[in-house]
Amino acid sequence: MKIAIYGYGNLGRGVESAVKQNPDVELVRVFTRRDPATVKTLTGVPVDRTENVLNYKGEIDVLVLCGGSATDLPETTPKLAGDFNAIDSFDTHANIPAHFAKVDAAATKGGKLALISAGWDPGMFSLNRLYASAILPSGKDYTFWGRGVSQGHSDAIRRVPGVRDARQYTVPIQSALDAVRSGSNPELTTRQKHLRECYVVPEEGADLAAIETAIKTMPNYFSDYDTTVTFVSQEELDKNHAGLPHGGFVIRSGKTGLDGEHSHTIEYNLKLDSNPEFTGSVLVAFARAIDRMSRRGVVGCKTVFDVAPIDLSPLSPEEVRAHML
Amino acid sequence: MKIAIYGYGNLGRGVESAVKQNPDVELVRVFTRRDPATVKTLTGVPVDRTENVLNYKGEIDVLVLCGGSATDLPETTPKLAGDFNAIDSFDTHANIPAHFAKVDAAATKGGKLALISAGWDPGMFSLNRLYASAILPSGKDYTFWGRGVSQGHSDAIRRVPGVRDARQYTVPIQSALDAVRSGSNPELTTRQKHLRECYVVPEEGADLAAIETAIKTMPNYFSDYDTTVTFVSQEELDKNHAGLPHGGFVIRSGKTGLDGEHSHTIEYNLKLDSNPEFTGSVLVAFARAIDRMSRRGVVGCKTVFDVAPIDLSPLSPEEVRAHML
Repeated sequence: MKIAIYGYGNLGRGVESAVKQNPDVELVRVFTRRDPATVKTLTGVPVDRTENVLNYKGEIDVLVLCGGSATDLPETTPKLAGDFNAIDSFDTHANIPAHFAKVDAAATKGGKLALISAGWDPGMFSLNRLYASAILPSGKDYTFWGRGVSQGHSDAIRRVPGVRDARQYTVPIQSALDAVRSGSNPELTTRQKHLRECYVVPEEGADLAAIETAIKTMPNYFSDYDTTVTFVSQEELDKNHAGLPHGGFVIRSGKTGLDGEHSHTIEYNLKLDSNPEFTGSVLVAFARAIDRMSRRGVVGCKTVFDVAPIDLSPLSPEEVRAHML
Repeated sequence: MKIAIYGYGNLGRGVESAVKQNPDVELVRVFTRRDPATVKTLTGVPVDRTENVLNYKGEIDVLVLCGGSATDLPETTPKLAGDFNAIDSFDTHANIPAHFAKVDAAATKGGKLALISAGWDPGMFSLNRLYASAILPSGKDYTFWGRGVSQGHSDAIRRVPGVRDARQYTVPIQSALDAVRSGSNPELTTRQKHLRECYVVPEEGADLAAIETAIKTMPNYFSDYDTTVTFVSQEELDKNHAGLPHGGFVIRSGKTGLDGEHSHTIEYNLKLDSNPEFTGSVLVAFARAIDRMSRRGVVGCKTVFDVAPIDLSPLSPEEVRAHML
């Protein structure tokens, strides 16, 4: 199975390293908006310009779109889904129905198969919300994120005057997790679920108190949360906060029994050293499924909900039944 | 969607109470080997004898087989899978390939659809082993069970001379769980993973030391484990150990990155007040999928691996994409 990567940032490199662990998957090309002469891939895969991608029609089983959800994917997935089987990790939850409709129209018209919003949230977390709610209809589910780096929040801090660099961690609050796990189905405010920890490198001579206030009162990003601001040197940030860890929890608790007398808790959690490498690994597994489903004649846009799990595995159905069931 | 329950023990009652939470599912009949006049269902559903089941051909969308895996299901699922869409919770892992082959032959011949081994292990735990291994091919997975009641082990204790009643709890060992969660991929012996806690009601005048020795040295069931035996009165057993709680953990840790430099841990865990009611809830969700897949013309034997998650939900694909993705 031949795949190509379209967009070569952290996520593209995550997909590239995931391919190395999947012997049935071959990475044939990386497409970049930069000058290919300036881009050296981790594994020596040849690079071409994004505008040349249509030259490769017929040579790529699945194109893995590794752009951002804010501006790249809303453009590129619908644009390319008519020419290639395609997969993306579009993660702006509120815009998924609109993105789905555009990609579905393009893929259906071109007789191709696309899958949007693969990763861990949306992606594996979504699957767990669906499975758990189907099993325990009388219940409530909760999603917690972290402890992990939010790139959007880190970027927001960097836009504050006087800030040179920053890293923001989203941290689930243990007492809220414990309350959810107890099965008590608590009502939790935004502030009760997550803390925001900010590590900030100030410009020389900057007004630290003003920076701290600007961060803590920033609407949408920080004002609804308990936020800590710690000023650090660039060296300290580079040394201790260079990684992109993330993770989180999907927990559903629900009742069964004629009178709801029995409680059950279903929990799925992830602890990830590298958010882009894990997301890349999910994309490669679902790219395998897309390739198989496409060979069976499936066209249009799908999501992780439409994929039978067996299609994700490189093993045969017989092996999977014998060893994993 | 009309279902019927075949076999009315704890699991059958679990399915019956799950139906109450699923307005799109109607329970039309309970089949029992007992005299129907002696069986009163929880929700007033009419009862008939198992030998009359073929009279209901065409009236039942999915027959939910609620017998035991030791002797009932190996007989009944292949026998009935040619006449009804059928689902079971066959859980003798080693015999799954043989059971699958027989059910597949019967269902295919009759143009029906069957699904075997739905529940939580096999079932939801199997799904999580498959998803996690497809995402993190370079890794190792671990399954822990408990804390919960093992009916097989409780039965084994009851067969010891001098034992009147007993209840056995399988208990995962916290230090083993912690080691697995740390990502260190430990090699764990049977004894290092689980403890066995036994609550035993002796007959009057029984030799307690002999009972304890007989239990602790029993091959397969107890000799490979650290086992505790606590003697209790029948009243205490009935009061404190009447429930059927269970649960467990599926944890996979794996590496990504060009040199495996990043670790990831995927964990799925269940905490269940009632094993049969939770298993019944899983059966009803997968029965919904079987009904839908059958209407699309799918025949033969399937497992949880073959079911696209969307087919488990009573919601429309649009609703699921908008609210759960």
